[in-house]
Amino acid sequence: MGKVIANMSMSLDGFIADPADGIDQLFGWMGSGDVEVPTAVEWATFRMSPASARYMRDAMAGVGALIAGRHLFDITQGWGGTHPLGVPIVVVTHREPPADWPHTDTFTFVGDVEEAVRTARAAAGDRNVVIASAKIARQCLDAGLLDGIHVDLVPVLLGEGVRWFDDLAKAPVRLGDPVVIEGDGVTHLAYDVVRPS
Amino acid sequence: MGKVIANMSMSLDGFIADPADGIDQLFGWMGSGDVEVPTAVEWATFRMSPASARYMRDAMAGVGALIAGRHLFDITQGWGGTHPLGVPIVVVTHREPPADWPHTDTFTFVGDVEEAVRTARAAAGDRNVVIASAKIARQCLDAGLLDGIHVDLVPVLLGEGVRWFDDLAKAPVRLGDPVVIEGDGVTHLAYDVVRPS
Repeated sequence: MGKVIANMSMSLDGFIADPADGIDQLFGWMGSGDVEVPTAVEWATFRMSPASARYMRDAMAGVGALIAGRHLFDITQGWGGTHPLGVPIVVVTHREPPADWPHTDTFTFVGDVEEAVRTARAAAGDRNVVIASAKIARQCLDAGLLDGIHVDLVPVLLGEGVRWFDDLAKAPVRLGDPVVIEGDGVTHLAYDVVRPS
Repeated sequence: MGKVIANMSMSLDGFIADPADGIDQLFGWMGSGDVEVPTAVEWATFRMSPASARYMRDAMAGVGALIAGRHLFDITQGWGGTHPLGVPIVVVTHREPPADWPHTDTFTFVGDVEEAVRTARAAAGDRNVVIASAKIARQCLDAGLLDGIHVDLVPVLLGEGVRWFDDLAKAPVRLGDPVVIEGDGVTHLAYDVVRPS
């Protein structure tokens, strides 16, 4: 069975977006290198350092489903209907999908994180479930549903914005030592969550 | 000339102490390994992983003076008169030293961070000045006096406590890609501060 992994680009001071939800300061490493990493959509091709490209290709090959929050779904307008990862998307929301949203197997709308993880695991099979929203990741962590935290740590201090790990219900949360991959403009840190014994 | 470097152990979510100023969750890597790293005082001998021991010995060999805030000086009771690094200490404070504090060349009490950096640089010569207090490090960063930020990143989420990089006056602050050393229970990340051009 695959793992449930939260993955975000984060500033050294813990922010995943600026106060206006902007991410320009945090995603430069995805577009500033020489190695092309194609995605499932034409509008998104990454250009990365060789190290980040290897990391991203491995991550993309390992992912079987994605969980996102409704906020991320809304601000990306549902990625135009196809997420760059090209995998089933489970959106956690208390509201109905947009009225004109096409009914496909690619997007499932569920009411809570437990159902989201169940649904995404079933879709992912042996591959990993990746969580792409900070709030959902926190809720999964609180519910003991998270196996890994993969941080793309960006060498910048933002000073203000949206924090990834605010308002943890159960702390401290122990992690294992990370697998480290050094990119350009990013340090990839892959941590396992240590379950309380 | 040496560099002015801020160095702290920090949780992945950006805390350098728990809400009660406790640091037990963050300094385990200094005492859980097999390699002894002696200090200038008998009451402090580190026991680290081989990688952390090499990192610490290099850091200790490179430091020529230390800047601390009054809060750190007070809660450590002035390290009993001798800091483990065995170098001159510059304490930033608006108050008088403790009445019974011995007058030695080891401790200098100054009123602001500019004077602290001047004094510490003069004492350090060609070696580095290390800043051991979060608030002083932030003030130096704001004043453009900081050359490096060395983070001993600990694989834990504390959820609450004292943040290192709160209330930055000038953000974003760009850093270079870090030198990475992988220890046990810690990832050492040595960043240079990129000065605005």
